[in-house]
Amino acid sequence: MTVKTTYNVAVVGATGAVGQKILKLLAEKEFPINEIKLLSSKRSAGKIISFNNKDVTIEEATPESFEGIDIALFSAGGSVSKELAPEAVKRGAVVIDNTSAYRMAEDVPLVVPEVNKEAIKDHKGIIANPNCSTIQMVTALKPIKEQFGLKRVIVSTYQAVSGAGTQATVELQKQAKQYLNNQELEANILPVKGDEKHYPIAFNALPQIDLFDEEGYTFEEMKMINETKKILDDQNLSVAATCVRLPFFTSHAESVYIEVEKAGVTVKDLWKELDSADGVILEDDPATQTYPTPLSAANKEAVFVGRVRKDLDNENGFHLWVVSDNLLKGAALNTVQIAQSVIKNNWL
Amino acid sequence: MTVKTTYNVAVVGATGAVGQKILKLLAEKEFPINEIKLLSSKRSAGKIISFNNKDVTIEEATPESFEGIDIALFSAGGSVSKELAPEAVKRGAVVIDNTSAYRMAEDVPLVVPEVNKEAIKDHKGIIANPNCSTIQMVTALKPIKEQFGLKRVIVSTYQAVSGAGTQATVELQKQAKQYLNNQELEANILPVKGDEKHYPIAFNALPQIDLFDEEGYTFEEMKMINETKKILDDQNLSVAATCVRLPFFTSHAESVYIEVEKAGVTVKDLWKELDSADGVILEDDPATQTYPTPLSAANKEAVFVGRVRKDLDNENGFHLWVVSDNLLKGAALNTVQIAQSVIKNNWL
Repeated sequence: MTVKTTYNVAVVGATGAVGQKILKLLAEKEFPINEIKLLSSKRSAGKIISFNNKDVTIEEATPESFEGIDIALFSAGGSVSKELAPEAVKRGAVVIDNTSAYRMAEDVPLVVPEVNKEAIKDHKGIIANPNCSTIQMVTALKPIKEQFGLKRVIVSTYQAVSGAGTQATVELQKQAKQYLNNQELEANILPVKGDEKHYPIAFNALPQIDLFDEEGYTFEEMKMINETKKILDDQNLSVAATCVRLPFFTSHAESVYIEVEKAGVTVKDLWKELDSADGVILEDDPATQTYPTPLSAANKEAVFVGRVRKDLDNENGFHLWVVSDNLLKGAALNTVQIAQSVIKNNWL
Repeated sequence: MTVKTTYNVAVVGATGAVGQKILKLLAEKEFPINEIKLLSSKRSAGKIISFNNKDVTIEEATPESFEGIDIALFSAGGSVSKELAPEAVKRGAVVIDNTSAYRMAEDVPLVVPEVNKEAIKDHKGIIANPNCSTIQMVTALKPIKEQFGLKRVIVSTYQAVSGAGTQATVELQKQAKQYLNNQELEANILPVKGDEKHYPIAFNALPQIDLFDEEGYTFEEMKMINETKKILDDQNLSVAATCVRLPFFTSHAESVYIEVEKAGVTVKDLWKELDSADGVILEDDPATQTYPTPLSAANKEAVFVGRVRKDLDNENGFHLWVVSDNLLKGAALNTVQIAQSVIKNNWL
């Protein structure tokens, strides 16, 4: 068996916020690239982007674009992935998909490398990158589950506008200026670009991320519920979620309540597991007001955990405050880490 | 027995944010005032404030200020209440105290009129107004508890900066301008004026409201836990709380997870109770993106509830999204409502 040492990599959605971060990480982490192909919609084709100090012309993504590609990183929206990921697989590429298109498909591994790297090896061509809010939560929960068992998760999120795309970021900036100038706030994007009504996000909180389903849950909440069970490989785990969009630009924060299975667990026990966990940085010292915040976690790769507390009324209950950059560990970084696992373990 | 028809009222802390709202409400609601006395620290004494189109000179609060006063409304901080509330009681006044000084004292009723008005009649001179984040939550929980029983509450809050005083409001405005002008953010007040470190709140989230206790809980979280049990008169109720300060000016929002005692309860059952509950307005229709937000609830008197959902994994679990103006129902309005109950029922 010949093992390749460099790879032909395609990035689909290269001009988007996540695509840009992926390119930056591939370069920074010296991903062993033989040839890179930057793909996008017809609209952006022809633009030139610098990658590793070389100019690369963006091409329109078509089925034929994937000829000779070893690894294709998709982050151009669900419909593009639905159309083109199978075409890439057909041509021999391994797809790492950053949209929700394949996450819950039975034959598609849904992977956070620190949590379930081994699932990658069963892939049939497509590996899915989970939703941003799920990734950071399961990264923090994994070491706890492994050591003490996990019965239940109840999470309330505090999510940054960049999760809704660059336009949402611009909208928050605009509205904040309007508010400070005593002008009326114009809302055209948030809470959900594709939904009917829009509400101001500046100096506000919107309890809607993505569209609503028939049970009154948002798709974002359902993603957290379903993806958490799949990644932690536990359909008996009870997961409840409320997702809220807030007026900050980067990083999602999460107030996570858990019940562990084992009796007699202490805050120190959790600290010990979190402190030694892969991808987690513990920032938790009330005496010195040490805890993570969206601003402190921005542009960093780790999942930060603080405010670990034992429920005063329930022996097995604990609180965690989990913060991470939603565009890094929540998206681009996790995608690149999956790609690194694929080549390191020869799981192509 | 002679029943008075007008009352001598003192407002202590008349120049503060809550004091100002109290004066506005007393006038708007035509509280039957014979004489009003506006009291404050030495610093503000001598200032003139307009009340009901009459100029009133602010006097320094001293024990003697309360001679002849029937009702004294305190919102000038815990130390002022500790010193002067007993002096007011000694001189025959009923004190309604808006600080945390007496809330957990055994012989002091802690009252939200919609929830436990009857507790007022056992007062020994002092009636306590609960913490803002507690008031709106128990107002929403009361009708549910009464009809279906309540086993458990797990709340994560989204709290406005005005809860930390006028200086915190000014700080958010300043920092937001600094951020938009690419200047460094100056933090001198939040998360807690009296604590050692200060962090930016603009475009951020701070998981600290009030100081930390030795268990790693903040006092705000302990207030929610202890006050909820006292007001709902149920020491067996399990309450867990995480309190977070966010970059908006007015209204607290709360992601409240509950477990009811009765089996087979539906979302429609909860809607019915909430819809007819005193002080509650149900705003819950996912199909039309109807839910309350901090901006939509600001300057309104009700407690707004939306996003009512049944936990998909736990038969007795439900989610609520509870929003209310923290300076109105959370503070000034509740204080005035207690005063109204006192005189209406002749509980002086």
